[in-house]
Amino acid sequence: MTYLENSGVSSNTSIHLARRPSGLPVAADWRRETHDIPEPGPGEFLVRITMISLDPAMRGWLDDRPSYLPPVAIDEVMRAGAVGEVVISSHPRFKVGDYVLGTFGVQEYAISGGTGVTLIDPKLGTPSMYLGVLGMTGMTAYFGFFNYGRPRAGDTVVVSAAAGAVGSIVGQLAKINGCRTIGLAGGPAKCGYVVDELGFDAAIDYKNEPLRESFQQHCPTGVDVYFDNVGGGILNTALGHLAMHARIVICGAISQYNAESSTPGPSNYLALLVRRGTMQGFLVFDHADEYPIARKRLAQWVKEGKIIAPETIVPGKVADFHDVFLRLFSGDNTGKLILDITAS
Amino acid sequence: MTYLENSGVSSNTSIHLARRPSGLPVAADWRRETHDIPEPGPGEFLVRITMISLDPAMRGWLDDRPSYLPPVAIDEVMRAGAVGEVVISSHPRFKVGDYVLGTFGVQEYAISGGTGVTLIDPKLGTPSMYLGVLGMTGMTAYFGFFNYGRPRAGDTVVVSAAAGAVGSIVGQLAKINGCRTIGLAGGPAKCGYVVDELGFDAAIDYKNEPLRESFQQHCPTGVDVYFDNVGGGILNTALGHLAMHARIVICGAISQYNAESSTPGPSNYLALLVRRGTMQGFLVFDHADEYPIARKRLAQWVKEGKIIAPETIVPGKVADFHDVFLRLFSGDNTGKLILDITAS
Repeated sequence: MTYLENSGVSSNTSIHLARRPSGLPVAADWRRETHDIPEPGPGEFLVRITMISLDPAMRGWLDDRPSYLPPVAIDEVMRAGAVGEVVISSHPRFKVGDYVLGTFGVQEYAISGGTGVTLIDPKLGTPSMYLGVLGMTGMTAYFGFFNYGRPRAGDTVVVSAAAGAVGSIVGQLAKINGCRTIGLAGGPAKCGYVVDELGFDAAIDYKNEPLRESFQQHCPTGVDVYFDNVGGGILNTALGHLAMHARIVICGAISQYNAESSTPGPSNYLALLVRRGTMQGFLVFDHADEYPIARKRLAQWVKEGKIIAPETIVPGKVADFHDVFLRLFSGDNTGKLILDITAS
Repeated sequence: MTYLENSGVSSNTSIHLARRPSGLPVAADWRRETHDIPEPGPGEFLVRITMISLDPAMRGWLDDRPSYLPPVAIDEVMRAGAVGEVVISSHPRFKVGDYVLGTFGVQEYAISGGTGVTLIDPKLGTPSMYLGVLGMTGMTAYFGFFNYGRPRAGDTVVVSAAAGAVGSIVGQLAKINGCRTIGLAGGPAKCGYVVDELGFDAAIDYKNEPLRESFQQHCPTGVDVYFDNVGGGILNTALGHLAMHARIVICGAISQYNAESSTPGPSNYLALLVRRGTMQGFLVFDHADEYPIARKRLAQWVKEGKIIAPETIVPGKVADFHDVFLRLFSGDNTGKLILDITAS
């Protein structure tokens, strides 16, 4: 237990779900706790968490309803992807000094037996990249776009939340694939960013432009692939502009995650019939076997400058989790949102 | 012109679209006209129509909006599938006495150059079967179910409008394919028919049973294939009961065809993400190259007694088109609805 003795650290602060939010989470939905750092058992290791991932999907884990993962239980440490350094280990594969990626939760230290933990290869990228372009974010973009969008060169690809973590990568993958790429984002600054920095062919400012007219202008031959992160009216408008045999990839629906009552469905869904379209949902976890190859390809594209992996890294403590999490829903965030708890 | 001289017939009565219906069509939306029978030109033939097909999709052709076919124009003869006898011909392939299937319209006689016309093979089935199980109805069921439903033996297959023309065949195809098959129909008589005559494993009376509870009872492991002919609340309930990797086949939405305002979309569509499901629309016309093989297989199953092809054949005149057409929307119809104009 040299680390604990040498570092003088003995306690772990963690953020727990105190009650289920109704609508947008408020501070009182969370509770901070501080406990002694547990000692890893045989075959286990202790991770000092350095960076915590903030993702829209986390909002869904707070609701008590059946989904692809069980909801976070009341009083449980908030579930979150994170990276950190192995500081104590009796695990044969994870050594002290290794950096690792896992679902370690919103806390300072985590014990792991290694299940679902990825060793970070510094030759491929930094720990923060393992939360973003080389982590769940990049995997989601990669498998969602290629396996479900089934893009062909020349396709018109439309991406919602194009300045967000997943959307920004999807758009760049579409450009690599020879597609005409249109991004939706809120406000002129984000739209400029999407075109000038990320290289989309055009952006639609959904907050300030008439949606139907903008779709008509930018997608005169219709939408071949619509990659949806937002749901709501934008999804419905996209359905109204499908090209023949269009593919709609349902990745998320951030516009609906904080809704306090049932939200309307896409009334234009019969366009799927007229246009022989497909609307398909997916979960990145189903592709875990293929993460390593996707990670290598994405890392290569980053090295070649074909993908930039925008990150917003906020320094703070685990106690800042709530405030930083809300940035996902305020429309202020660009790229991958990360809480860095090493700074303080 | 022997036929016209011998038969003493010289006029053709036809039903024209007088104005676009708002909601359910009314009699004044149509106009009956009588004209001289036109003479077929070189390479053309004259068909004496015997039976006219009545299909929910015809309602969609009356609205002036972009779809998979242009809308029926005002004053045009109402578009309809029909079968009839060739009575005059200078066409090399269609001879006098042949029975043919084509989009001949709601009228007594039609001229054709042969494009899109199918020669009826009496060894495969009767002319009315060429409107039903061996016609668009059967083709729609066959390609929709097999190509888009992608059934596996043991799947739970749910079919809406199960007593209708397409639904009744889809359910029987599902049974042939070794699927557990549940049909939705309105009222105990239709539900009894679906189970006792068509051989579905169970029926849900959507008019009298609580939908969610019935889905739970009959689909305890979830719905693998949902073949939708109705849209609306039944589609939404089905989305709430998907098995993993479920396929939703959008064939039609009869509950919405006469709606006078925008109808709500399926608010449960995010189940596609949680369940990794696919919702896909299709049009049977895309499979025209494969009609002959589908027709042979369906005819064989009918001969073997594995498929019964329910028909409701109403004797009348073309002037009865409006009244018979409305039976599709009143919930009274079972199986393929046909207007037989030879009886009178």
